[in-house]
Amino acid sequence: MDHCLTLAALNALPTPEFAAVVAPVFENAPWVTDGLAAMRPFTSLTVLHAAMMARLHRATEAEQLGFLRGHPVLSPRTLLSGTTKESMTEQRSAGIHAMDAAAAARLDDANAAHMARFGFPFILAVRGATAATISAAMARRATATPAAEHAEALREVEAIAWMRLLDRVCPAPSGGISLHVLDTARTRPAAGLAGELWHSPADADARCMARFVTDDGGRVPSQLSGGGLAAGAYEWRLDTAAYFAASGLATPDRSFLPIVVVRFAVANPEQHFHVPVLLAGGSYTTYRGS
Amino acid sequence: MDHCLTLAALNALPTPEFAAVVAPVFENAPWVTDGLAAMRPFTSLTVLHAAMMARLHRATEAEQLGFLRGHPVLSPRTLLSGTTKESMTEQRSAGIHAMDAAAAARLDDANAAHMARFGFPFILAVRGATAATISAAMARRATATPAAEHAEALREVEAIAWMRLLDRVCPAPSGGISLHVLDTARTRPAAGLAGELWHSPADADARCMARFVTDDGGRVPSQLSGGGLAAGAYEWRLDTAAYFAASGLATPDRSFLPIVVVRFAVANPEQHFHVPVLLAGGSYTTYRGS
Amino acid sequence: MDHCLTLAALNALPTPEFAAVVAPVFENAPWVTDGLAAMRPFTSLTVLHAAMMARLHRATEAEQLGFLRGHPVLSPRTLLSGTTKESMTEQRSAGIHAMDAAAAARLDDANAAHMARFGFPFILAVRGATAATISAAMARRATATPAAEHAEALREVEAIAWMRLLDRVCPAPSGGISLHVLDTARTRPAAGLAGELWHSPADADARCMARFVTDDGGRVPSQLSGGGLAAGAYEWRLDTAAYFAASGLATPDRSFLPIVVVRFAVANPEQHFHVPVLLAGGSYTTYRGS
Amino acid sequence: MDHCLTLAALNALPTPEFAAVVAPVFENAPWVTDGLAAMRPFTSLTVLHAAMMARLHRATEAEQLGFLRGHPVLSPRTLLSGTTKESMTEQRSAGIHAMDAAAAARLDDANAAHMARFGFPFILAVRGATAATISAAMARRATATPAAEHAEALREVEAIAWMRLLDRVCPAPSGGISLHVLDTARTRPAAGLAGELWHSPADADARCMARFVTDDGGRVPSQLSGGGLAAGAYEWRLDTAAYFAASGLATPDRSFLPIVVVRFAVANPEQHFHVPVLLAGGSYTTYRGS
Repeated sequence: MDHCLTLAALNALPTPEFAAVVAPVFENAPWVTDGLAAMRPFTSLTVLHAAMMARLHRATEAEQLGFLRGHPVLSPRTLLSGTTKESMTEQRSAGIHAMDAAAAARLDDANAAHMARFGFPFILAVRGATAATISAAMARRATATPAAEHAEALREVEAIAWMRLLDRVCPAPSGGISLHVLDTARTRPAAGLAGELWHSPADADARCMARFVTDDGGRVPSQLSGGGLAAGAYEWRLDTAAYFAASGLATPDRSFLPIVVVRFAVANPEQHFHVPVLLAGGSYTTYRGS
Repeated sequence: MDHCLTLAALNALPTPEFAAVVAPVFENAPWVTDGLAAMRPFTSLTVLHAAMMARLHRATEAEQLGFLRGHPVLSPRTLLSGTTKESMTEQRSAGIHAMDAAAAARLDDANAAHMARFGFPFILAVRGATAATISAAMARRATATPAAEHAEALREVEAIAWMRLLDRVCPAPSGGISLHVLDTARTRPAAGLAGELWHSPADADARCMARFVTDDGGRVPSQLSGGGLAAGAYEWRLDTAAYFAASGLATPDRSFLPIVVVRFAVANPEQHFHVPVLLAGGSYTTYRGS
Repeated sequence: MDHCLTLAALNALPTPEFAAVVAPVFENAPWVTDGLAAMRPFTSLTVLHAAMMARLHRATEAEQLGFLRGHPVLSPRTLLSGTTKESMTEQRSAGIHAMDAAAAARLDDANAAHMARFGFPFILAVRGATAATISAAMARRATATPAAEHAEALREVEAIAWMRLLDRVCPAPSGGISLHVLDTARTRPAAGLAGELWHSPADADARCMARFVTDDGGRVPSQLSGGGLAAGAYEWRLDTAAYFAASGLATPDRSFLPIVVVRFAVANPEQHFHVPVLLAGGSYTTYRGS
Repeated sequence: MDHCLTLAALNALPTPEFAAVVAPVFENAPWVTDGLAAMRPFTSLTVLHAAMMARLHRATEAEQLGFLRGHPVLSPRTLLSGTTKESMTEQRSAGIHAMDAAAAARLDDANAAHMARFGFPFILAVRGATAATISAAMARRATATPAAEHAEALREVEAIAWMRLLDRVCPAPSGGISLHVLDTARTRPAAGLAGELWHSPADADARCMARFVTDDGGRVPSQLSGGGLAAGAYEWRLDTAAYFAASGLATPDRSFLPIVVVRFAVANPEQHFHVPVLLAGGSYTTYRGS
């Protein structure tokens, strides 16, 4: 995020420099992003990404197939022989480079079967994925119809393009995160509930981004708005032990839920992530609100 | 847990040694545990604890009041002047010893007001509590009726006694932890969902106790049974990214919930903790089941 | 609702006529409403009711006790001997007049025990209550402390006063009902979901108040605003069979939830009742939102 | 249900009579059920139905296409010209015979478009469906790929076959209905909660099948087992007003949820329908459990 290009700067670039920024978002297919310079200005990554994908969806089925065939194979062998910088970074983030020989052999068998059945490599937005996620997706897609797999591969391309775009250009400052806690045991807002918002909660660089107390409506107004929202994992930590102690519902260390933890992911930081929590003494429900 | 006394050993102790084990469970009130030796054998801490509390509840109101008056005050000054070993350890675990002067003064004011209103010190099972929990409980109880505060103080004594008992005697091996995940988006068990069970997830000594894959019924059969369950915090971590990838519901890094985290507390390790999770694509509900 | 007095008309009444309207809101205690005329104008029943209750709470404990003692006993015998018109109507709505002799004898025994323990009759806002509700409340309150029962009796008086006020004066037109359905299986609003809003759904005079289709945000904007909201039971009926058929989630008659029914009560029609529904294929959660 | 053929009787029928029972389960395709007689005995309709569908799925794509082409069109014109007795009954149950001319014309246009695109009629298990459900399904499927629509038509055939089978043969007595209510506000089973189980709750022939009080575990053991379970709509009605009054959580007529209503459908009465309800004071969650 620190050194990303702003949308204003992207919109002001000469066409060749603009093309140099956006072309690597797709694998070996500069034609997908060719006409975009003339469509500027773009006011958000969401709009720019949609314009890219619209171009790809307008292409003929043969052009799309050619495009899919241009993708590198997910494999340690690809990393050894080399491919685009972007794909290599992504494959490494999913641990492809560190697979043992047996796992690599199974992966290559599955890749070969996929190519034989569908005529293009198995494509997955692997950034941050685990071996389990990759093999679960491979297993499911191995038996799809060609039309279904064609559509799914394009959805993966869409996800890959989005992540790459986020690496290169700063998102518009439209996104945010907010919390709303309802005390469903007593049918009222959970006012005065203290908590924290964490970023990358499971990682070595986990950091607390905000400490808060819910207002009379049980809400924490939008956090991290104004451009500070980055893609990644977040976590609400709610001090329900203190809240229950203030309410007379339970006493510390004797509740099933002395702390409520809600971990969630932000894929598109231009969106708003509203997270309601319905809290009863021994249960909670959470969802992405709107 | 490692060096705790077994129930069998406790049941076999000569009466004076038995009394020496159980008396410190209450503050300065050996009469509460006096008749317990004759009631042996006890087959669980739950039963032993209930017997202790029954004795306390059978006491006259004046005896109970005398007992409550015998409790040390929660305060840095108490720690300086000294009190029972048990109370000092508990107060330190809640950070009482590390309060700054202003906080300590506020606490002592609140303690004095409590004593003036109710005639006995503010009593709270503080082990592991935060300053926020303590002050929330004090603020609420400050305005209670004498009868309500008397009852609440006895409930705190009950919790303190339970925790002290757990320090001294090993729980019976009747407890356990189990998980049941329902896929409510598709109205069926969430089979094949991988995950982990962690102990003390927020602490430096966090450790993964089990890795699992849910069975065809969406269940993880009882974990940690056979005496291995200890009081404390636990956490289920569910690899929903891989599950959704296998289901075609979403792909990695693009779901709101790529991992579902359910943190909960075990106060009584002789009980079974069954944790159902109702998982939809962008929402989950969890509760203590039965 | 049809012939109720408007707040404007109430505010304009001469003081004796105003007193005649509000005094019967409490049993045999004109002093509670005595000073209210001078506090006019009242802009809502909620404010008027709060002013009444504030007067009662400012009274001395002895005055309150005298007031509670002035309440009629809930009993067929009371209905035979006669009491205030309001109490007789309320007792009949709960079926007190139709009790058989055995049930009446049990009720009178419980009433006598309550009077003996607490010094005032058992008071309950019985309008529309069932025999089960009455006996459940009596059983629980029989063992309360005098202070707790005193407080609870006042809360019942508060509820009785509210219902009587609603009989006499039209509520302010501030209330409303709204619905918000989230499709948690797909993490998006449940747009295009058809449904109906019913009033008194379980009664002979049940009627459909509105037919609707949720908007793109999954919402049904405020219904029945502008003074049309009455106290009573309401029900949302959601045509989830058609919604699932449009979504490809399931087909008619084969879903566990072809129709989702959410019944709820409006006690104060000056409030807004926002009802979120979290809908997955085979599960839903509902709550009173804010 | 009353006059259905038992599985024992079906298993004992001479082959021609057996064929006469099962052939009308499919439209104009006796070959689907031809070999079934030799596979007897069948111990449940679920197994018999699975055997039928397995035969259909083993057929070649051309045979399946021929089979789908043999289906009558959903249309008032079909009802006028006549088709199988089963289809006519089903179409009437969805009100096809009572459509006005404009709606009929729109339906026939959609039917013609479906036939032109996919080569077979639009097939839907319409029994009890509404016009909204039919048009929602038509609109969605109009843009499907041929392979997806082929698969979906077979799923509809599966549903139609199941319903027809239920008309002809009594289900095995393996099914049942049970309820489990958890009080999530207090983290314990909702014991002593009274309620009713209704069949066909929205129809003129609605009837109360059982009155119950939940046991100490918050459960209502299996109802209607032993062969009494029929396909159709059911409803749990829970007297939460009395439960809350017994708990001190709220008083009658002042709760948002004085009664909790859970309506659900039983498609396969050989299955067990376990319905958990997570009840907080102002919220509930329900789902099909297992």
